Amino acid sequence: MKNLFSFLLLITLIISCESKSAINNEILVDTEDALNTAIKQAEPGDVIVLKNGVWKDLEINFKANGTEKDPITIQAETEGEVIISGVSHLKFGGSYLVVNGLHFKGGYAKGNVVDFKLDDENIGNHCTLTNSVIEDFNKMERDDSDRWVQFWGRHNTLSNCYIAGKTNRGPTIRIDLKGNEHINNYHQIINNHFGPRPPKGGASGETIQLGDSYTSMAPSYTLVENNLFEECNGEVEIISSKTNFNQFKNNVFYKSEGSLVTRHGNYCTIEGNYFIGDGINENIGGIRVINSGHTIINNYFYNLIGKNFRSPLAVMNGIPKSPQNRYNQVTDVVVAYNSYVNCVSPWQFGVGVNTDQKDVLPASEIRSAVPIRTIVANNTLYNKEADSLPIVAHDKIEGVTFKSNIINNQEGYFNAVEGLSASNFEVKAISENIYIPTESLNVEPYVGFDFDKITEDIFGNSRASNNNIGAFVSNEAVNPNILDKSKYGPSWFSQEQNTSEAQIFKVAPGEDIQKKIDEAQNGDVILLSAGNYSVLNSLKISKNITVKSADKNETIITYTGKAGSALFELNPKGFLSLDGVTLKGNNETKAFASLKENMFTHFGLNVYNSTITNFNYVLKVYKQAFAERISFINTSILNCENGLELSEEINDKGDYNTEYLTIKNCEFNNVKQNVVDYYRGGYDESTIGGNLIIENSVFTNSGSHEKNGVLLNHRGIVNVTISQNSFKNNPVKFVSVLWGAKNNSEINNTLINSGEIKTEQNLKLTLMY
Amino acid sequence: MKNLFSFLLLITLIISCESKSAINNEILVDTEDALNTAIKQAEPGDVIVLKNGVWKDLEINFKANGTEKDPITIQAETEGEVIISGVSHLKFGGSYLVVNGLHFKGGYAKGNVVDFKLDDENIGNHCTLTNSVIEDFNKMERDDSDRWVQFWGRHNTLSNCYIAGKTNRGPTIRIDLKGNEHINNYHQIINNHFGPRPPKGGASGETIQLGDSYTSMAPSYTLVENNLFEECNGEVEIISSKTNFNQFKNNVFYKSEGSLVTRHGNYCTIEGNYFIGDGINENIGGIRVINSGHTIINNYFYNLIGKNFRSPLAVMNGIPKSPQNRYNQVTDVVVAYNSYVNCVSPWQFGVGVNTDQKDVLPASEIRSAVPIRTIVANNTLYNKEADSLPIVAHDKIEGVTFKSNIINNQEGYFNAVEGLSASNFEVKAISENIYIPTESLNVEPYVGFDFDKITEDIFGNSRASNNNIGAFVSNEAVNPNILDKSKYGPSWFSQEQNTSEAQIFKVAPGEDIQKKIDEAQNGDVILLSAGNYSVLNSLKISKNITVKSADKNETIITYTGKAGSALFELNPKGFLSLDGVTLKGNNETKAFASLKENMFTHFGLNVYNSTITNFNYVLKVYKQAFAERISFINTSILNCENGLELSEEINDKGDYNTEYLTIKNCEFNNVKQNVVDYYRGGYDESTIGGNLIIENSVFTNSGSHEKNGVLLNHRGIVNVTISQNSFKNNPVKFVSVLWGAKNNSEINNTLINSGEIKTEQNLKLTLMY
Repeated sequence: MKNLFSFLLLITLIISCESKSAINNEILVDTEDALNTAIKQAEPGDVIVLKNGVWKDLEINFKANGTEKDPITIQAETEGEVIISGVSHLKFGGSYLVVNGLHFKGGYAKGNVVDFKLDDENIGNHCTLTNSVIEDFNKMERDDSDRWVQFWGRHNTLSNCYIAGKTNRGPTIRIDLKGNEHINNYHQIINNHFGPRPPKGGASGETIQLGDSYTSMAPSYTLVENNLFEECNGEVEIISSKTNFNQFKNNVFYKSEGSLVTRHGNYCTIEGNYFIGDGINENIGGIRVINSGHTIINNYFYNLIGKNFRSPLAVMNGIPKSPQNRYNQVTDVVVAYNSYVNCVSPWQFGVGVNTDQKDVLPASEIRSAVPIRTIVANNTLYNKEADSLPIVAHDKIEGVTFKSNIINNQEGYFNAVEGLSASNFEVKAISENIYIPTESLNVEPYVGFDFDKITEDIFGNSRASNNNIGAFVSNEAVNPNILDKSKYGPSWFSQEQNTSEAQIFKVAPGEDIQKKIDEAQNGDVILLSAGNYSVLNSLKISKNITVKSADKNETIITYTGKAGSALFELNPKGFLSLDGVTLKGNNETKAFASLKENMFTHFGLNVYNSTITNFNYVLKVYKQAFAERISFINTSILNCENGLELSEEINDKGDYNTEYLTIKNCEFNNVKQNVVDYYRGGYDESTIGGNLIIENSVFTNSGSHEKNGVLLNHRGIVNVTISQNSFKNNPVKFVSVLWGAKNNSEINNTLINSGEIKTEQNLKLTLMY
Repeated sequence: MKNLFSFLLLITLIISCESKSAINNEILVDTEDALNTAIKQAEPGDVIVLKNGVWKDLEINFKANGTEKDPITIQAETEGEVIISGVSHLKFGGSYLVVNGLHFKGGYAKGNVVDFKLDDENIGNHCTLTNSVIEDFNKMERDDSDRWVQFWGRHNTLSNCYIAGKTNRGPTIRIDLKGNEHINNYHQIINNHFGPRPPKGGASGETIQLGDSYTSMAPSYTLVENNLFEECNGEVEIISSKTNFNQFKNNVFYKSEGSLVTRHGNYCTIEGNYFIGDGINENIGGIRVINSGHTIINNYFYNLIGKNFRSPLAVMNGIPKSPQNRYNQVTDVVVAYNSYVNCVSPWQFGVGVNTDQKDVLPASEIRSAVPIRTIVANNTLYNKEADSLPIVAHDKIEGVTFKSNIINNQEGYFNAVEGLSASNFEVKAISENIYIPTESLNVEPYVGFDFDKITEDIFGNSRASNNNIGAFVSNEAVNPNILDKSKYGPSWFSQEQNTSEAQIFKVAPGEDIQKKIDEAQNGDVILLSAGNYSVLNSLKISKNITVKSADKNETIITYTGKAGSALFELNPKGFLSLDGVTLKGNNETKAFASLKENMFTHFGLNVYNSTITNFNYVLKVYKQAFAERISFINTSILNCENGLELSEEINDKGDYNTEYLTIKNCEFNNVKQNVVDYYRGGYDESTIGGNLIIENSVFTNSGSHEKNGVLLNHRGIVNVTISQNSFKNNPVKFVSVLWGAKNNSEINNTLINSGEIKTEQNLKLTLMY
C-alpha cells in the first residue's frame, strides 16, 4: 500500500514537473538576495525581472539550466532602465540562459564583466546576452587586464548589444578555447554595435579576439555577422582571429583604425564585409592575412589609404618554420569577387618582410617566407585618381596567381601583372560610401577550385546567371543602409548624446576657478578675465573643458601649491584646452600632470598661445595614464627644470602614454632636462604606435642637465617628424636619434651649437614574445 | 530543313550518349598503346582488362572520368596474373576510376609507384586502387626517395592491397595536402595488409605518413581502418599523422618496430586498435602522442616492453612556442577505455624531456612543456608479473588527470597516483594474444567531457547498459581473429612462400664456387671440402646462402682479384653466412664489400668460426647500402690494413649502414686503421638507431694508423654495448668514446697500454631540422 502511494506520488510529481516547464513564470526581484533566490529556484521557462533602477555592486551568477524550448531569462523591468554599476559582473553557468536589456555603466568588474562560465564546473552553453549595453566599464588601471565579454563553452550568443569605451588592457570580447569544452563552439556575435574604443597606446586593445596562439590549432567555428564596428581604434587589430574555421560576414568596419587580421589559425571565411575609410586617416585598415586557407570574398573596400600592415589587403610574409606564436607562412588563400573603390595601393604582398634586419633579430623573427598557392581573382579596382602601384610587392609574388581582375585607373600608368587588366568601367553611388559599377563588366570570371561554391554576391544576390566579377553581381542595387544604426545594438539605446550649446563661465581674479570648473559641463568654457590669479591647490580636470583668457597677454596664473603637485591635475575623462594664459610656478611644482594612479580612462591636453615658466615639470604623465592627443601650439616654455615627460612605460610591452604628441610654433628656452621624453619599448612589429610631431619650433639653451644627452628623446616611437625647427646653444650630444627602419624623419632643421641629429637604422629592443 | 536535320541528329547523339553509360563495356588490351587508346576512349561504366602476363615498363596514366554510379575500371584479366615490372607506374587523373588486381614486382617507378594525380590539372578524386600487390618495388639507391602510394585530391581509396618490402627512402604511403584540392580529403586506407618493411637505417621509413609539418594545420579526415601492419620496422614511426581529424580504427599492429605517432596536427581519433608485441623486442611500440585534442579509446595493448619513445603510451613533452616542424605541447588529450595486458611501464609522460641538454641545444629544441588538460580514465592494466612503475613521469604530471583506472599488479608495489587503484581482476585468453577480464570489473566509469559519445567497445558492443572500464565491455567475447590474413589484402594473394628444404652443393678445391652459388636457391648451402681454393674474381652473392667448410681448420680461400675488389661482393638480397673458412688476401683487396651503387635493397652478413688475413679491408659498406644485421662470431681478423668500415653516411641526415653490428668472441690483431668504424650523424631524437655489440673479444696491436685516434669508432650510434673485452698494446688515444646521453655502455673491459674509454655526455651533432 505504501509502495502504491509512493508510485502515485512519483507519477504526480513527474506530471507536475513536466507541465511546469510550459508556464512562463515571471519573478520580479529588487535585491541581489531576491535575484539569487530566484536564480536558485528557476525552472525552464522562468523569467526573472530586475526592477528598474541602479543596481550597484551586483554579481549575477546565473547558475541554472533552461531547455532549448524553454530557456531561463533574466531581463530588465524596462529595457535600458536597469543600470548595473559599481563592482559588478554577469556570469553564465548552465544551459539555455538569456540575459536581456541591461545597461552596464559607471563601474567595473573584479574579473571580466560578462563571463560565459561561472567556474570550471559550471560552463555556459547555449546562453545569450542580448539587447544590452556595456559602456566605459574600465578597471582603474590601464594595465589591469580584463575582457568585457569572455566566451567559454559552446553555442553562446552576444547579440544586439552596444559596447564602447574600453581603454584598459585586454580585448573587449574574447573567445577562449582552452579545453575541449570550448572548441567547435559555434558562438555567435551578431547584430552588435561596437562603438568607439580609443587607441590603447600599445598592444592588447582588440575589439574581438578569437582564441590565442596556444589554441591556434583548435576548431572554433565562431560566427561574427552583421556587426557595426565604429571607430574601434584600440590597436592595430580590430578583430584578431587566432583559431580555425571562423566566419566574418556582412560586418561594417567604419572609420576604425585597425584591420581584421587572421593572426593565427586557418580556414576562416571573410565574406561580404564593408571596410570604409575617410581617405585621410592612414590608420584605417582592411584585411591582414596570415596563415592558410582563408577565403576572402564579396567584400567592399572604400576610401582606404593605409599602407603596409594597414593596407586594404595586406598579405604577410611568414617566418620559415615559425614558432607557434609568430608568423606562419600564407598558403592556399583565395581573394575573389571583392570590390575596391578609391583605395591607394590596396594589394600588398610580403608585408612584414624584414630580411634586412637579420643582423639585429634572431632567425626565428625573420619573415622571409613569401605567400604561396594564393589566388587573387575576379576583383575590381576603381580609382578616381590614378594609382601607379595598385599592387605592392614587398617581396617576391610568384606564389600569388592573379586572374580576371580589372582596374579603372583613369588611364594612368600602373604596375601591371598578368591577371590585372585596365578597364574603363564606371561606378555610381548607391549611398554615401558605396559605389557599384554602372553596367555589367563583361569579364569572364575565373573559376578556381571551389569557386562554384561562391553562389552569391555581397547583397546575397545569386551569381548563378549573369555572374559578374567584383562584389556586386548587379548594377541595380539599392542603398544597403550599412550605417543605419537601428540595425545594430539594442533597440532601446542610442549612442547619440544630447549636446547642449557650450556655456561660458566667467571668472575674475580672486574668484575660485575650481568652483566654476565643477559647475561646468562637458564642452563648457571657463573664461578668465585679465589679471593675476593665485592658485594654492591643484585644479582638478575630469571633464572636457576649455580654460581661456579673455585677453591672452594679461592673464597670469601663479601656482603656489605644495612641492610635486600640479597646477592642472588631469583626471580620467579630463580633457583640458588651455588658451592664452601665462602659468607661473615656484620651480617645485608641475604645470600639468595626470594622476599617479586610478587613471581608469583617458585624458587629453591642448595648450594654445600660452607661456609656461618656472615649473619643475611642464607635463608629467605617469605610468598607465594615456591621452589620445597632447599638443602645445604657439606656446613658450621657459626656465623649467623638466619639459614634457611621458616616459614611464618602461616594462617594454609596447605601451606608451600618448598616441599623438604635437609641438608646433613653440619656444623652449632654458629647459634643463627631459625637454621632450616620450618612450615606447619592446619589439612589436604589429603595434604601429606613437606619433611625435615637432614643427616650426625654437629650442635654445636647453638640455644642460639631460643625462642621456638627447634633447628630444623619443626612443621606440614609430612615427616621428621633426621639421622646420631651430636648435641653438643646446649643450647635448644629440638633438634627436631617429629610428631609420621606422617612420622617423627630420627636414629643414637648423642646428647651431646643439649636437647632431643621428639616424640609427635598427634599434635594439627587448623582444616582446 | 537543314536546321531540323541538325536538331534531330543532336537529339539522336544525346540519346545514344546517355544510353551508352548504362553499358558495361569490357575492352581487353594487350599492349600499352591499346591500353592508352582504351583509356582515351573510356566512357563511364567501361572496364579495361589487362591481358595476363608480365607488363614491363608500363606507365598507366589513367586520365578519364567515370561517375559515382558508373566508374571506369582497369583490371587484370585474372587477378594476380598481371605483373607490372620494370620502370612502371600508375597515375590516376580524373574521377571515379578503379584499378583492380595488379601485381607490381621486379621493378621500380621513376617517380612514385602509384599517384592519385597525373599532373596539377588532372587530380584523382573518388579513385580506388584495390585488390593489388606492390612488392619490393624499390628504387636503385636508398637515398632516392619515393612513395609507393601517394595520395592527392579527395575521396580516394586504397583497399585490400598487400604492400611490403620497401627499403628506400620515403614513406610507403603518403597523403599530400599542399593545396585546397587535397584537404578535407576523406581518403580511405582500409583492409590492407602492410607486410614487412625492414628497418631503413635512418629517418623517412614510415609506412603511412599523413601530411607534413607544413600542412599540419590542414583538415585531412583520412580514415585508416582495419589494416594489418606486420613487421613494419622501417623507422620509429609506423604511422606518422601530421594533419587534423584523422581516424585510426580497428587496425592491428603486429610485432612492428615503431609506433602510431600523432607527430603534427590535432584532434585525431585512435580507436579500437590492437598493438601486439612479443615481450622481448623493445622496439615494438604503441601510441606516441604529440599535439592537441586526440582521442585514444578502446585500444588493446599486449606484451609491449618498449621504453620512452617506444612505450605503449608515450605522451611527449613539447617545446614552448614550438617551431612549426618540432614538438607542440600535448593538450586536451583523452586516453580512455583502453586495456593493457603484460606491458611494462605502459604509461610514460613527459617523454623526450631534454632540459638537461640546454647547454648543447638551442632553446627552440628544448622540450620542457609538460602535457596539460589531459585525462587518462577508465583504463585497465593487467600484469602477470608485478610492475613497480606502470606510470613513468619523465617530467611533472600535474597536467594529467587520472580517473577510474585499475591495475592488477599481482599485489606487487607500484607507484600509485590518485585515479589508479589496485584490483585483483583476472583475465582469460580468447585468442593467442588477446586476454579479456573474466568478469565485470565493478568500477564506475568516469564520465568526462564528451565521454557520452564513447558508445561502443573495441568489438563494437554497446556501452549503453552494463558499461565496463577497459576496452572490453563484456567478458563473453569470441576470438576476433585479428591475425586471420584473409581479412586483409587481396583475395588472391598469400605472402606465404613455399619453402623447400635447404640443398647442399658440395665444392672441391679447383671447382668453380661461383657456378655452384648461381645454381643454388635461397637457403641453400655451399659446402667446401677441405683444401686450398684460389679465387680470381669476386664471388657475387645475391641470394640467401651459406658458404661452409666441411672441416673448419683445413679450408682456405686465397683471393687474388684485382686491387680494390672484394672476395665476396654483397649484392642486393645477398645474405651471406660464412662458416669455418680461412680467407687470405693480398693486402690490396677486400674480404667483403657491398656494391658501390644500385644497392636497391638490403644485404646481410654473418661470419662464424673463420680467419681473415691480409686484406686491405675486412668489410667495406658503401654509402646507401644497408644490412639489418652484420655479425662476426668466433672469428680472427689478422694483419689487415682496415677492419670493418661502415662510415660513409656522412650527410648527417640520421642514416647509417647497419641496424645491428655484432662482434663476439673475436680476435683483432694488427688491424691498422678503421678497426671498427660505424657512423650515424645528425641530431634526430626520434630516430633511435644503430646497435653495436662488442663482446668477449681481444684487440691487440691495432689502430696504429688510425687518424682519429679511436679504436672502436661508433660516433652517433645510439645503442652501444662494449663488454668483457681485452685491449692490449693498441696505440690509440681512445678505445671508445661513449655517448653518455644515449644508451652507450661498457662493462668489464681490460685495457692494457691501449688508451682509455671516455664518456661524452652530450655529443655535438648537426641539427637535422
